[in-house]
Amino acid sequence: MLQAAEEITGFLGEDAVTYDAEVLEHHGHSDWSTANSSERAIAVAYPRSTEDVSTIARICSKYRAPMIPFGAGSSVEGNFAQPYSGICIDMSYMDQVIAFHPEDMDIIVQPGVNWMDLNSQIASSGLFAPMDPSPTASVGGMVSTNCSGTNAMRYGTMKDWVLNLTVVLPDGSVIKTRRRPRKTSAGFNLTSLFVGSEGTLGIVTEVTLKLAPIPEDTSVAVVSFPSIKAASAAASALIRSSGVQLAALEILDDVQMRVLNKHGSAVVKKRKWAEKPTLFLKFSGCAEAVKGDVKRVSQFIKPFTSDSFQVARTKQEEHDLWSARKEALFTMVSIRPPGTRLWSTDVAVPLSRLAEIIDVSKQDCSQLGIFASVVGHVGDGNFHVAMFFDPKDAEQSAKVGKAVKHMMRRALEMEGTVSGEHAIGIGKKECLMDELGPAAIGLMQTLKKAVDPNWLMNPGKVFDPPSNLYV
Amino acid sequence: MLQAAEEITGFLGEDAVTYDAEVLEHHGHSDWSTANSSERAIAVAYPRSTEDVSTIARICSKYRAPMIPFGAGSSVEGNFAQPYSGICIDMSYMDQVIAFHPEDMDIIVQPGVNWMDLNSQIASSGLFAPMDPSPTASVGGMVSTNCSGTNAMRYGTMKDWVLNLTVVLPDGSVIKTRRRPRKTSAGFNLTSLFVGSEGTLGIVTEVTLKLAPIPEDTSVAVVSFPSIKAASAAASALIRSSGVQLAALEILDDVQMRVLNKHGSAVVKKRKWAEKPTLFLKFSGCAEAVKGDVKRVSQFIKPFTSDSFQVARTKQEEHDLWSARKEALFTMVSIRPPGTRLWSTDVAVPLSRLAEIIDVSKQDCSQLGIFASVVGHVGDGNFHVAMFFDPKDAEQSAKVGKAVKHMMRRALEMEGTVSGEHAIGIGKKECLMDELGPAAIGLMQTLKKAVDPNWLMNPGKVFDPPSNLYV
Repeated sequence: MLQAAEEITGFLGEDAVTYDAEVLEHHGHSDWSTANSSERAIAVAYPRSTEDVSTIARICSKYRAPMIPFGAGSSVEGNFAQPYSGICIDMSYMDQVIAFHPEDMDIIVQPGVNWMDLNSQIASSGLFAPMDPSPTASVGGMVSTNCSGTNAMRYGTMKDWVLNLTVVLPDGSVIKTRRRPRKTSAGFNLTSLFVGSEGTLGIVTEVTLKLAPIPEDTSVAVVSFPSIKAASAAASALIRSSGVQLAALEILDDVQMRVLNKHGSAVVKKRKWAEKPTLFLKFSGCAEAVKGDVKRVSQFIKPFTSDSFQVARTKQEEHDLWSARKEALFTMVSIRPPGTRLWSTDVAVPLSRLAEIIDVSKQDCSQLGIFASVVGHVGDGNFHVAMFFDPKDAEQSAKVGKAVKHMMRRALEMEGTVSGEHAIGIGKKECLMDELGPAAIGLMQTLKKAVDPNWLMNPGKVFDPPSNLYV
Repeated sequence: MLQAAEEITGFLGEDAVTYDAEVLEHHGHSDWSTANSSERAIAVAYPRSTEDVSTIARICSKYRAPMIPFGAGSSVEGNFAQPYSGICIDMSYMDQVIAFHPEDMDIIVQPGVNWMDLNSQIASSGLFAPMDPSPTASVGGMVSTNCSGTNAMRYGTMKDWVLNLTVVLPDGSVIKTRRRPRKTSAGFNLTSLFVGSEGTLGIVTEVTLKLAPIPEDTSVAVVSFPSIKAASAAASALIRSSGVQLAALEILDDVQMRVLNKHGSAVVKKRKWAEKPTLFLKFSGCAEAVKGDVKRVSQFIKPFTSDSFQVARTKQEEHDLWSARKEALFTMVSIRPPGTRLWSTDVAVPLSRLAEIIDVSKQDCSQLGIFASVVGHVGDGNFHVAMFFDPKDAEQSAKVGKAVKHMMRRALEMEGTVSGEHAIGIGKKECLMDELGPAAIGLMQTLKKAVDPNWLMNPGKVFDPPSNLYV
């Protein structure tokens, strides 16, 4: 591995490779993640082009050194951990827009581009990239984890917004998965094979993103319910209604609302929130459509709650209301007792089962004596439970681990998934096996082995090599 | 192969296998397709379950007999041709709905289900499967070709509506690509690998489809333009506008409109159509939104044409207007001179290039003396040119072949694709190589070989085996 790093330095220059312990630590561990490895990469390389990445891959292949791509470091399942050491490949200098085609509604970017910066940069064109994961996320990581966020209800997930990828394969060869049409039916869908494969098949060096028109108008409404069940029932009915198209539909539970009242930012604390399960609704479209949708939904929701349907009357109010949803996770993090860590789960189930699984999960946490709050993307049947635990407290850690396992087992019993948007990393490999079974995982392993016969690309993620790989 | 067929008969029964020459002919050749093979399968097998398909695959693998799945036979690129003979696997008896979950907005079906029947069957639930390819298409074929149709602008393509697949692999093993959540980020996206792979990796035996709410209201408008350029410019501006969400946006050229005036059905002939490039627009949403959208678009379009914006005033008018679009292809087929055949192209380009490629393609056809009409899915940059040719007239056939080649070369120069929605089959293998290059095709071949080492699944489609496969 050291030889590989030295040879990379020879090609890319002294500045492009570091062995600094602090840098290695930062690239090998995340406080946000509950799935970390104690191993570290032996070096971090900083490519500036597809050619650089190709050189790195060629050299790593030659020396059989694992390659671990690193984006913004915001993933939470140990997706960039280095359990087999190797060379960490930090994409942060590959942060350029390569070509913007407003008339085609697409943009070609390098993987190190931050999605919020990108959207600011192109805002005047009237277009935007609709995925909204963590504010710090980079496009490369978003591709690798098939991310989504609150916009998924209307806009789908990352896979729906990638037109093509340039990918460096393990041996250093470079492919482009597609050309640039918005629609195609030509050959295997390699784009979708790489999206969500967490860098285990190749390293993404260019991404062509489809863009959407920024909606002319938006609005936000908030309404609380007597129970998770009532909130979910209202949400389900809304999703199935033929006349309304929501831009987002999110749920925060009573605990989360209490936390916002107590510890929210100044903006959020402007109002006193009902400490009950609460739906946050976003509307978008032309001004009349938004007005019409808001009115319809306010009527539609009445049988489900007697609480008032609060609609933003101004753009400031709209911002303030949505801030409560946006700040939920960060507010939880800010009140984390010293020494404790946050565990955020990410299961998704068929729509009709969401209320039940949230309810049972909350009961389970409460029986185990764990402080837990719920934030859910109701429109997709996906929710997160945020729990604190002290990693030094074995009993508490075990309890949280148990609650997480219960949740995943329940999700699978309901024909759901153990990962709605955070991917698998090293944290959920076992659960993925439970979810899909040995035959489907076997096929994934077959594909992996065909593309990466020496298992060098982000090894130890998504699934392990079959036990007979090198027999 | 004969041994394989006999062993299949032994397991599945006499009724499940036929050697009838007429049946073989029907399964091996299509008048709709310009890409046929002279070879025929030696038998057609009719499975009734996943287990039957698994048995067939196991036996075919044992005898190294090619397996060619057959849906409704409506594909046009020779997707079900049998250039290496083998066993044709007709899925028409696998036409059952396995489970309908209206509350989860999904449905599990066998691949032989016709999409129009399916939508009639579930209409009372207020839900529908939004893809609208050929009326005869079956779900299995729709999955295999990653089909779309006029609804693609709003709803995307088939890959966006498949939640999971049950697939029989070449050795007879069975996998399920996902469970049933609407959103997931768990492991490789096997679903999207199989969608559009034309049965070359495995045989799809169950499909879970995501469903959408039937829009509360719809409307249709029609407007003609002085030129393709003006029509395309209007379309582009509309697609990028922030306030309007169209359900569909289609173009018919002057030739196609003339054909409709002359040869359209009674419904279409109710009105005299302007024989100019014409946009067909579909609106959908709640009643007010549709009304608002229609009004906006009628204003929006004014700078691009002085022709009148004709909006359906009644549901009957809406049906009649849209019929002209829907009947376009069939009308062309009905006026086909005896002995001639229809060649329908299917390229797609980035949005801004659509007007140019349609214009140049029309000029090209006119210079070559070919009668050609254009139907386009403007909202996706995808269009079809329908041309007649007499297969016995070598000169004419050559001319049409040339026009088709020119069109594909032009599409590639514009960073487009040679297949927007009809897939590759045996008809476009060379062009796919031109489109993606040897590195990307090489990766597809690597994946194919890993999953199907003996190249038995629908061989000769999408791409050929690498020349060194069995060296």
